[in-house]
Amino acid sequence: MNMNTDLSYQACIEACQACAVACAHCASSCLKEDDVKMMADCIATDLDCAELCHLAVSYMARDAAKVREVCRLCAEVCDACGAECGKHEHQHCQECAEACRRCAEACREVAA
Amino acid sequence: MNMNTDLSYQACIEACQACAVACAHCASSCLKEDDVKMMADCIATDLDCAELCHLAVSYMARDAAKVREVCRLCAEVCDACGAECGKHEHQHCQECAEACRRCAEACREVAA
Amino acid sequence: MNMNTDLSYQACIEACQACAVACAHCASSCLKEDDVKMMADCIATDLDCAELCHLAVSYMARDAAKVREVCRLCAEVCDACGAECGKHEHQHCQECAEACRRCAEACREVAA
Amino acid sequence: MNMNTDLSYQACIEACQACAVACAHCASSCLKEDDVKMMADCIATDLDCAELCHLAVSYMARDAAKVREVCRLCAEVCDACGAECGKHEHQHCQECAEACRRCAEACREVAA
Repeated sequence: MNMNTDLSYQACIEACQACAVACAHCASSCLKEDDVKMMADCIATDLDCAELCHLAVSYMARDAAKVREVCRLCAEVCDACGAECGKHEHQHCQECAEACRRCAEACREVAA
Repeated sequence: MNMNTDLSYQACIEACQACAVACAHCASSCLKEDDVKMMADCIATDLDCAELCHLAVSYMARDAAKVREVCRLCAEVCDACGAECGKHEHQHCQECAEACRRCAEACREVAA
Repeated sequence: MNMNTDLSYQACIEACQACAVACAHCASSCLKEDDVKMMADCIATDLDCAELCHLAVSYMARDAAKVREVCRLCAEVCDACGAECGKHEHQHCQECAEACRRCAEACREVAA
Repeated sequence: MNMNTDLSYQACIEACQACAVACAHCASSCLKEDDVKMMADCIATDLDCAELCHLAVSYMARDAAKVREVCRLCAEVCDACGAECGKHEHQHCQECAEACRRCAEACREVAA
């Protein structure tokens, strides 16, 4: 993607996109695991995180007025999701936890 | 992004993500142009396209049941957006037209 | 809500809004049930349906070019979600099945 | 809509839904006005507000962990959008300003 968007957002947009996909993929994969019951909190937080990451991407792409506030909140939701996903051994959970960690960091830089 | 998602989706997910951002950025940039009136159709189609690209990403990331139908429709909306953006000389419009063209192609492969 | 939107959309907008909320609520409630494993397909289809209903609302509110195609697809996803939810006795599933049925009908009228 | 959702959210869900539709309708209508240039800020804030209202609806419907933080931010964005829309005489702007005012109030109650 070779875009003209404000460069300070580009890294965070990519981190949020990756996180949104990792969360959606993790939620969907958790639903196919044998131990779905144990994954319920993980699925719930995945949904929260995927939606907020998407909002953050939209706000950054439009350079919206409240982009910093949205990214600050996104970082908090990523923290919560990463902490929950990090408890589980499934590969999709571990990958999601890592994507959340990176996204939280990138969002905090935008929010700062 | 090093994810476990079905490989056949990965290229299309990236094309849709790039297109959604290009559309949101184009809409926002059009609103700052002197000739906003002339850009009204471009802005409208950008919004349609950004939203459908986002939906397509979500459906692919979850490998949702109707993912092919969503990608087929996304390709149509990308065609319309790319045609409209392609009429304008602004760099954000030209970049968006190109992102739409790539996204339409990638969506047609998933839909096939 | 006393709005100036094209009256032919108003009923469908409300049906899609109700369906999106019913689906999100059903998904969240399913995750809290003891038999989550049995609800996995219901949760997955709830997510698909909630997202498409939201897209349909946006397209109708903007009177977007592809609004009929989006509503046609939304009706299909509502059918699938209503069929799945209808299999389960939980009140949130039964309410969601009914919201899906109404939404599918309203979307078909817009799509016609 | 006769739903089992936490009653404390029901009024706010409806206010956010009405606001999201009013914003999308206002943005689309502004694009068709003769004085689009003058409406550019209104369109931009409409887009921000519609997206955040939608997120708030999703979070409330799922009773998500960060629902209060999302509603607090939604109230701020509604304030900004209502202030901008309130400057313009178009009926869609005035209706949107009113929807924003109600939504901000409802969101503040949830956030409290």
